[in-house]
Parts: sequence; structure tokens; C-alpha cells
Amino acid sequence: MAICPSADKKLEQYIATKGEETSFHRVEPQKHKCTFGLQGICCTLCSNGPCKITKTAPRGVCGANADTIVARNFLRAVAAGSACYIHVIENAAKNLKAIGEKEGTLKGEGKLQELAELLHIKEAETMTVHQKAIEVAQKILQDLYKPREEKMELVKVLTPTKRYEKWQDLNILPGGAKSEVFDSIVKTSTNLNSDPIDMLLQTLTLGISTGLYGLTLTNLVNDVIMGEPVIRQASVGFKVVDENYINIMITGHQHSMLADLQDKLTTPEAIAQAEAAGAKGFKIIGSTCVGQDLQVRGEHCQDIFAGHTGNNFTSEALITTGAIDLLLSEFNCTVPGLEPLTEKYQVKRICLDDVARTAGATYQPFTMNQAEALTDQIIESAIKSYQERRNQIRIDIPTDHGHDDVVTGLSEKSLKQFLGHSWKPLIDLIASGKIKGIAAVVGCSNVALGHDVITVGLTQELIQKDILVLSAGCSSGGLENVGLMSPAAASLASDNLRSVCESLGIPPVLNFGPCLAIGRLEMIAAELAEALAIDIPQLPLVLSAPQWLEEQALADGAFGLALGLPLHLATAPFITGSETITKVLTEDLKEITGGYIIIESSPAKAAKELSSIIEDRRAALGL
Amino acid sequence: MAICPSADKKLEQYIATKGEETSFHRVEPQKHKCTFGLQGICCTLCSNGPCKITKTAPRGVCGANADTIVARNFLRAVAAGSACYIHVIENAAKNLKAIGEKEGTLKGEGKLQELAELLHIKEAETMTVHQKAIEVAQKILQDLYKPREEKMELVKVLTPTKRYEKWQDLNILPGGAKSEVFDSIVKTSTNLNSDPIDMLLQTLTLGISTGLYGLTLTNLVNDVIMGEPVIRQASVGFKVVDENYINIMITGHQHSMLADLQDKLTTPEAIAQAEAAGAKGFKIIGSTCVGQDLQVRGEHCQDIFAGHTGNNFTSEALITTGAIDLLLSEFNCTVPGLEPLTEKYQVKRICLDDVARTAGATYQPFTMNQAEALTDQIIESAIKSYQERRNQIRIDIPTDHGHDDVVTGLSEKSLKQFLGHSWKPLIDLIASGKIKGIAAVVGCSNVALGHDVITVGLTQELIQKDILVLSAGCSSGGLENVGLMSPAAASLASDNLRSVCESLGIPPVLNFGPCLAIGRLEMIAAELAEALAIDIPQLPLVLSAPQWLEEQALADGAFGLALGLPLHLATAPFITGSETITKVLTEDLKEITGGYIIIESSPAKAAKELSSIIEDRRAALGL
Repeated sequence: MAICPSADKKLEQYIATKGEETSFHRVEPQKHKCTFGLQGICCTLCSNGPCKITKTAPRGVCGANADTIVARNFLRAVAAGSACYIHVIENAAKNLKAIGEKEGTLKGEGKLQELAELLHIKEAETMTVHQKAIEVAQKILQDLYKPREEKMELVKVLTPTKRYEKWQDLNILPGGAKSEVFDSIVKTSTNLNSDPIDMLLQTLTLGISTGLYGLTLTNLVNDVIMGEPVIRQASVGFKVVDENYINIMITGHQHSMLADLQDKLTTPEAIAQAEAAGAKGFKIIGSTCVGQDLQVRGEHCQDIFAGHTGNNFTSEALITTGAIDLLLSEFNCTVPGLEPLTEKYQVKRICLDDVARTAGATYQPFTMNQAEALTDQIIESAIKSYQERRNQIRIDIPTDHGHDDVVTGLSEKSLKQFLGHSWKPLIDLIASGKIKGIAAVVGCSNVALGHDVITVGLTQELIQKDILVLSAGCSSGGLENVGLMSPAAASLASDNLRSVCESLGIPPVLNFGPCLAIGRLEMIAAELAEALAIDIPQLPLVLSAPQWLEEQALADGAFGLALGLPLHLATAPFITGSETITKVLTEDLKEITGGYIIIESSPAKAAKELSSIIEDRRAALGL
Repeated sequence: MAICPSADKKLEQYIATKGEETSFHRVEPQKHKCTFGLQGICCTLCSNGPCKITKTAPRGVCGANADTIVARNFLRAVAAGSACYIHVIENAAKNLKAIGEKEGTLKGEGKLQELAELLHIKEAETMTVHQKAIEVAQKILQDLYKPREEKMELVKVLTPTKRYEKWQDLNILPGGAKSEVFDSIVKTSTNLNSDPIDMLLQTLTLGISTGLYGLTLTNLVNDVIMGEPVIRQASVGFKVVDENYINIMITGHQHSMLADLQDKLTTPEAIAQAEAAGAKGFKIIGSTCVGQDLQVRGEHCQDIFAGHTGNNFTSEALITTGAIDLLLSEFNCTVPGLEPLTEKYQVKRICLDDVARTAGATYQPFTMNQAEALTDQIIESAIKSYQERRNQIRIDIPTDHGHDDVVTGLSEKSLKQFLGHSWKPLIDLIASGKIKGIAAVVGCSNVALGHDVITVGLTQELIQKDILVLSAGCSSGGLENVGLMSPAAASLASDNLRSVCESLGIPPVLNFGPCLAIGRLEMIAAELAEALAIDIPQLPLVLSAPQWLEEQALADGAFGLALGLPLHLATAPFITGSETITKVLTEDLKEITGGYIIIESSPAKAAKELSSIIEDRRAALGL
């Protein structure tokens, strides 16, 4: 059975040899794509449909034209993506509040004080840590639950002044984040909004709320709960899996749900339980973004976290190693293809959040107040699964897959610290041309274009043009497994960048962890812009989500467009059936927010275009 | 150009003669339907797609099977429909609150007291009318904005005990209505929920919140603001349009946004303005559900409301009469096909709610606090449009279209009053077999099956089986235009029912107005069940939304299923690609809530099946 290629040749080889059906195998049988769906000109909103736009039928039965149909489909996808991230920050804030109320452990007390100051919480200095946690959480939750006609208050403190004023002028500042999603869903329902421009502006509003709350604030809240990233080296790939342990694979985006578990699994009591079952102890095996989140905070979970194995489309192969005993999921990307494989490999599945329930899994709802009891249940399930399956299942771990020297722990704060508590060294390197500019290569992995093939290809091209690459999301999972985040990758960069990397001992591709950390990249951009007293679109900084996959990626992308960044995608969202929408997003928006979409599937061509944009911006800054 | 047939032959003839493109004309060019879309087995959630399920490709690239894909698509549609209705009650409650705060006019003060008592508002007796309005509105808004983990409080007071306990047992009681929608959108996003049963149960939860808040409470709040329905006769159809007036056509679902306007248009000042422009005055021309809402409250807007012209797919033809000067829309169903027609007929368009913005329309956001200023602007626009267009546009009103004796003003309260302030006469008629049972024929109109063809055909069959028909929604707009809501229609009923109708002077099809009034039908069902000390599914009562159109109809349907009612649809929702989902909804659910879906496109067969269900239920009750 034909499988799709991967930039990660060892993984590709492993999947091919194994012969178990994965997403790699389903690309071929699904290769005949519906051209109406691809162009976004299919409408299924009512029983007169489905309708599709053709030359002889330029309107659906109701009269909706291609512009309206494309805009509705696109806005609905962005709204759903925003909903996902807002769900994540809502739970993170609720968990922070619950820890405050029960006076539990917070590993980032210093960060809490910084966050309280950032959010302008009065008298934060005089509050206890737990009072402060409650206050911070409430400020966030209050904003999320505002009605749409009330603007969220924290947007202003999280945004550089020039950008905030731009959003104010454009009238795209978000009201309550949940209500913005809600009304976007209303707008896109049958026979409601038919104004494509209004719907596109709404995507920008959703981009702002998604980015500042779903991404930025989630990182900061997680830093408070689970500890701040510290730059360090870590192991990645399937080699991190050790069959002598009871292995709990995690997928999702909601790290705070695992905070209690990750601490309890290394207590003497838990280790004794594991030993009694015949294992050396427990290990958490990272997969998808929550794995990246543990990796980036590896300093605070050294004993329990085995390492990050890979991204969304690496997860199925991980099950086929046979060494996973329990799959614990709390959000996406938990691909449904895991279901038959976990069944075959007798891997018990537990879901912690009902939005991410999967058929056949045990649903054990997480609440911070009952986290300890849940931890006990998870430990019990893991042990039981280990005992039941280990003599039934053959274990086959490709121990040559991965690296032991991936540089991780990057954040807006750890990077600045690394640079001497100042952005000046980075600004000087850019000004001198040693670093020509920065490209944030972020977002998902997909398989339609080959697993990580474009992400890796583009990154290789960019670093050969003296462009420093920052990565966050499943893109990181791919880039680290092919070695681009190890210091030796400096040798793959062009001369100037290579010398910078070698002198600093860093790779040319910096690993910020999960897609949530796109919010950290925004903070860096904002700080650089403020330091230079310019607006974000003036920075020699570009954005690429080459292998965007999900609705969430579209919401992230909308954030990038609202920030005014050029956004490269290897394949178009489902918008090309509308000339209007396509033109606005790829051209006209440049004059509105500064941001625009570039569609280019060739890594070389895309890198050339992004480099040229960086050069233009350098020239405009007189560099 | 071929047009689709209509049960309303005069309308069909008018549209055919006129030759302007309407939805009727676009059925033919859109007749080739995508079978994957029809079956719900097309997925566009990610960039690996679109994927479709076939025999050789039983899973999408991610591994999602038909059950997951169908469940996601279906839940997302129900969630969007719920969002629409929750938006409507949210605005109605906000408007009530604003009137309370500014001590404005409330036409249903008695109803306010009843509502305050129903909602268990303490000390309602001692409050002023305006305090009470604020309290009622706040109770509703507080529930809508609750997080999902907090159950809404008013569900209990709005639900018969037996049904409430059933919902409690099934764990489907809704948390905050907005959060239930929100998390449903999260559930249906990429690589999240893949548990079809969990998603189906979520549709029931959404059905409950949609029904009790979006439908029932919207009616009651509107009764307070605009006055309660009073049974009376009214004119319907295009004949209500008088070219000597400045005619404002209304479309939408949010009557309270028109409360100030409808009163101001008949002031001496407004009439003088109209006269100065050469007209006799202003008339509001009803179209879609908001027109039905004015019709049902016709007692309170006799001078200004010309009458209801027809449903969603009658609206385009109304523009082509040339006699409409302004199209005022505040929600759906404002079909996009109106856009080119209003342009050609030079009809100015104003939208009052941004969720319903249409391309080319003027957006004038409604807030109750600035309602008066907005009214002035609307009046000015209407006059200007009248002056500019009337000598350019030929007027052609089919004055033979419609009836002058439609019985309207039905509500849960006015019907009971009519029966002598008791349900006993109706129960006795049912017990005696004079009325065999009740069918609620509700919901939309569509054109894929012929405009109102199935709705009218089914209704004719039902009344020939001694089944009293109650109607709410666009179905009413069709049934009244073909004469089935005029007293003379008694002659079309079978003997028992005919004699009942003739003795009471009523038609065999009772007109409750807009789709929102499905909530009134639920109240009647609940009161009948309570009177008989039985649960709703035991009543000889069936539900049909024969020509359901929109996502909102699916949310209404989910309410019916949660109530335990058999729900007939002439065409299936897009679910048939999953055997599991289809079986659960058409069979298994019967044992869970009592409700289930019956798919039958033949009016005769459907009527036979519904009649047989009624007979079974009669037998079970010993009748």
C-alpha cells in the first residue's frame, strides 16, 4: 500500500516496514479531491442544497454567490478554530483559579507577579500568591465571557500601541471572545450574513482574540502553573521511548490538566506501584502540542518526561512501537486513526475533556479540584494496561529515530535572557546583516503534501538565506526530528547565520514548542517593534504556516494577518472559488492591516519571496 | 426558464409570468446534487481534505469514519441553528431590559407579571413594571451566559416534571446556552470529538436550550414588549400591498427591534411626512417570520401592519411587485436572491443587526436606547426611496393573491381562553374521538421539493383523518396563502373534525405564527400532559417539519426529539451516510427520549404513518 513521503526518512521507513494503516496510507485512497470543496464553493447550509457554484449556476438556490459561500465557509472555519483555542485558555484560567482557591502548587511564582503587573492588577504586590492567581484568572475569564458589545479589556495591555490604534481605527477590536465566536457562527448560518467583507473583517477580530487570549495568555498562565521554559538540550524522536517503563502517551493542548499527574508519577509511592507491576517506573511520552509544551518546560519535569516523539502524524506510528501502555488525551490533535491502532495494540485510552471524547475511550472528566483522585485512577489504569498487554504485544522501538541534543526551552523571556536580558544583541545582528531577518515557520503538519516535506524544505532554504527561523507547533515536531534544531544544523546555514549560530552555540532554527507558542513569537515581535518604535509590519519578520492543517491554524493565521504580517501557506485555504475573497486576502489586505497571504507550494520559491519581503523591509528601515 | 412548482398556484403563476430570477428558477440549475454532501460524508475540516467516504476509502486521511464525519457535520449544523435562536432570545431579553431601564412602553404588562411568576421572581408583585422587566431579562441573560458546567436555572420551571426528570436521567440538561453552542463547535473541529453518540446527545442538549430559551422565552418576552396575541381574522398574501402607501417590507425574527418603529409610523407627524411625499402614509408589509409575528399580534398594530404576504421563498416575488420601497431586515430568512432584485427595483435595504448584514445594504445597528433616532432614520430613508423610485418602477400587484379571513392570533394562552379558559374541551374532543389527535406541522418552506407542496399536501391529508393541525413557521405562510387557515377550509376536513371546526367557527389548521411559536406549541403539549398527568410522548401528538430548510430547523427538530415526539421530515438531514447515526435517530432514540425521526417524502404515506402513531397512543391511553 502506497504511503506518503515524509521529510523524516527514518519515520517513513518505519511506517512502511510496519505495514499498519496510518494517515500516511490514507492519502492515496483520498487523492481525488472535490474541486468545489477545495475552492470553498460548496454550500451545505440548507435542505435545498448541497449547492455548488459553476459557470452555468453562479448562485445557489437561495441566491448566494461564490463570494458569500466562500466567506461563510471560511469565517465558520476560523470561528471554529478560535473556539478551540478559547476553550484552551478558558480551561487554563479555570485551572489557575482552582489552584489559587485550593492554595495548590504554582511553579512560576515570579511569572505570576509579572503577569499580574502586565494585566494591571492593582495591589498585586501585597497579595498572596494564591490571591494573585485568582485575580489573574478572573480578569481573563471576565473578558472571555463579556457580551460582544463590550470590548475585552486585556487586549490593550497585550498589544503594542501602534497596532492597537490600527485595530481601533479598523473597528476590529474584539468583544467577549466567546461571543465573537458565537456571533460568527450565527453570521455564517443559513440566509444570514451575505456581506463577504464584513465576514472577512470578522475573521480578523477572531484572529486578535485567538492570538492574545488563546495563544499568548495560555502560555503565560501555563508558565505560572507548570514553570517557565529554561533553555536546555533534550532528546526527541522514538528513541526516547524505553520499554522498561509504563509509558503514558499524551496528546492535546491543555498541559495544566496534566500538572498533578506529572508530579505524582515520580513519587516513591507511584514508583513502588510500577515496580510491583514489573516496570522501572512511569514515563510520559510526548506527542503533539502538549508534548511540545512539556518539552519546552522540560526543566520542571526532567524525571518523568521521556521526551517528545513527534507531531500529529507521527502519533499513529508511535502506537505501533507496542511500547505505549496508555493514551491520555485532553484535546486535539488526537487523530481518529489512533482508534483502531490502540485497539490492536491493546492500548487503553482515557479522555479528560468531553470536547475531545473519542469512540471507545474512557471519559474521565478533569477538574482541578479532583485532580488528585483522577491521577490515582490514571495510574491504576496505566498499571492495569501494562500488566494486561505487555506479554501480548511485541515491542519494536526504532532507537535510531531522533536526536539527543535538540535545543529547547525557548520563550520570549528565556531568549531575551540568553541574549543578555536585552533584545539589543539580536537587533544589532539584524542591523549588521549577520541575520537578514526572521521567519516564524509555525503551525501544523499535514500529509497531503508529504509529511513535513514543505516545512523542512522551506526552513532549509530560509536558513541558507541568513534568515533565522523560529518555530512553534507541529512544525517544530518535524523540524527537530530531522535535526534542524540541533546545534550541528548551523552547518546547513549560509555563512553569516552559521557564524552567528556557531558563536552562540545554537541551531539556526529555534524551538518554541507548541502551536500555543505562536503567542510567544508575537510577544517577541511586539517587543522588537516597541524597542525600535515601529509598527510590527515594518519589522524584517515574516510568517509561514507552510503545512497548515486545521481550523485552528486558520485562526492563528488570522492573528498573523491582523498583526500585519505576510503569511505564507503552501496550499490555499478553501477560498479560491471567490475572486473577491482571494484578492482581499492576498492583495488588498496589505493596505488595511499590512498582512496578506502568499500561496506558494515550492519551498524554494516561497523562501525567495519571503526573503525578498525581508529585504524590502530592511531597505525601508534604511538597513 | 423552468421554475419549481408551488402549492400556491397564483404565486407560481405570478413568478412564471414576471420572468425575474428567483429561488424558484435556481432549483433547476442546481439540481445535480453531490451525493457525498447529501449523505453527510464529506469532510472539509482540514487541509488534507476534502475527504469523502466511499467503499474503497472508508476513512478520511485522519482516520475519521462515516459515523464521525456525519456526527460532526450534523452537530455543527444543529449548533449553528441553536446559535441563531439563542442570539434572538439574547437580543429580546436585552431589549426588554433596556425598556425597563428607560421606563419605556410595555404592551403586555399582565403577561410580564405571569412571566415573572413563571420564572419564580420573588416579590414580583411589589415591583414596578419596569423593575420586573429588568429582573426577568436578567434571569434569562444570566442563564444564557453561564459556563457549560453550570446548568441553566429556568429549564426546570419551563419543563413538565416528568420530562425534566427524563432529561436529568439522561444527563442532557443544558449548561449556559451560549457555552453549549460554543463547545459543540469545539467538539466538531478538526481531530477533536470522534464519539458519534456523545455528539448526538449533545444535539439533544442544544435542542432543549434552543426550544426553551430561543423559542418559548422569546415568545413570552415579545408578548411583554409588543402585546399578546388575540384571536382575530386578518388579510394575507400580496393583496395586502397597497401602492398608495410607502411600503416597508420586513424580514427576520427579531420583532422587538421594530417595536418603536411600528408605533411611530402611524403618528400624525409621520403621516404628514408621508403625505408630503405624495403617499397616504406608511405600511409595514410582513414577510418571513417577523411578519408572522406582527400578524399574530395584529391586534396591537392594526393601523400600520398591512398583513403578511408569505414566507421566505415568497419574498423575492414580493420585490417584483414594484410596490416595496424599503427592505428592513434584522435576521434571516433574508435570502441573498433579494439583492439583485432590490437593486433592479431600486429598493433601499437597511440591516439592523450585523449578523444579518447583506452586501450593498446600509447597516444601521439597532440598540433599544437609540431606537427613536433609528426610527427617524428609517422613516427618512423610506420616504427618500419612495420619492426616488416611484416614477421609475412599474407596479404590478397580484390583488387576487391571498385571503381576507385568515384566523390568526393563536397562542398557548389565547387558544385556552377561546376554549373557555381550560384545556378540558379540547381533551374531551380528543377523548371522544371527534379530534383524533394533533399534528404540529411546523418549520420552514423549501423549494427543492416544490414550494410548500409537501407541507400543504400533508396538511390536507392530516385534516382528512380527523387530525387537528397546528402550524408555526414558514409553513404557516404557505398554509394561509392556500386558504387552509380560513374558516371555509373546514369543508376540506373529514366529518368529525369538520363538525368541530364548523361549530367553533375555526379552520382545521390553526395559525400560531412564526417558527418561534413552536415554543407555544410545546407549552400546549406540556400543559396537556400535565393536565392528564402523563409524559409528553404519551400524548396523541406528532410533529412534522416536512419542508425543513435551515440549520435552525435542525435545532428545532432536536427540541422535538428531546421532548419525545415523533418528528416527520420529507427529506433526511445530511446523515444517511452513517448507518449508526441514522439508526439512532430513526429507531434507537425512541427508547431513550421517546422521540425519533420519520423520513417520508409522500404526503399520503407520511399522514398515514403519523395517524397510525396517534392511534397507537390513543390505544395506550385507553381511548
